[in-house]
Amino acid sequence: MFTRVDHVGIAVRDLDEAIAFYEKTFGVTFTYRHTATDQGVEEAMGQVGESWIQLLKPLGPDTPVGKFIESRGEGVHHIGYGVADVGAALEDLKGQSIRVIDEHPRPGSRGASIAFIHPKSVGGVLVELVQE
Amino acid sequence: MFTRVDHVGIAVRDLDEAIAFYEKTFGVTFTYRHTATDQGVEEAMGQVGESWIQLLKPLGPDTPVGKFIESRGEGVHHIGYGVADVGAALEDLKGQSIRVIDEHPRPGSRGASIAFIHPKSVGGVLVELVQE
Repeated sequence: MFTRVDHVGIAVRDLDEAIAFYEKTFGVTFTYRHTATDQGVEEAMGQVGESWIQLLKPLGPDTPVGKFIESRGEGVHHIGYGVADVGAALEDLKGQSIRVIDEHPRPGSRGASIAFIHPKSVGGVLVELVQE
Repeated sequence: MFTRVDHVGIAVRDLDEAIAFYEKTFGVTFTYRHTATDQGVEEAMGQVGESWIQLLKPLGPDTPVGKFIESRGEGVHHIGYGVADVGAALEDLKGQSIRVIDEHPRPGSRGASIAFIHPKSVGGVLVELVQE
């Protein structure tokens, strides 16, 4: 099912500061920046091999990423894995009684089709399926 | 500096159960298994594209991964990024006043040379540099 690590989603308090840090310190160039009001985040993505580092700044304290930072601090928020067909993968997982957050695929970053799987079903890891 | 996401390190309570889960649910095949007593973990690695999923089971409650699970539960423990030269990368980061955990490269999984960077210097993300 998983074809690659699509991205590592990292919760940050200050997006500009985090972008500058990753660029200067680790040589990652951020080529995509977007505000997703429905997700409550402003995000930036920088490519590393076939994967991306996704920096996520909450738009407010009552958003999912805002609550994550409040309870656990900044850090890895979720892992996005590439799949060939997100709709088929979602049906497969639902058939295995895996608890999903998104019942149906929805639009994600960079034109991808995505769906989130509940961390309670994946050993504490919030998993995002990503079909580019 | 970063050439790829080398691996996602995930803390688990039961290694056999986690391997079986990732194999059955997500189709990941685990081809490497190793006990690293110096690190206090038993680990298994399964390839996903150019990256690996690394499952880490603590050898006891007083190990770093054991303490992680006790305080935060199972979940993503660290991110390993590929680098061309871990010694040079480490010197570069130390020159930028980044706080490192390993002052010098040391042997890691699958014959790699590795070094850990402190999460306090990387926005709450425990980063491992990996030179294959």
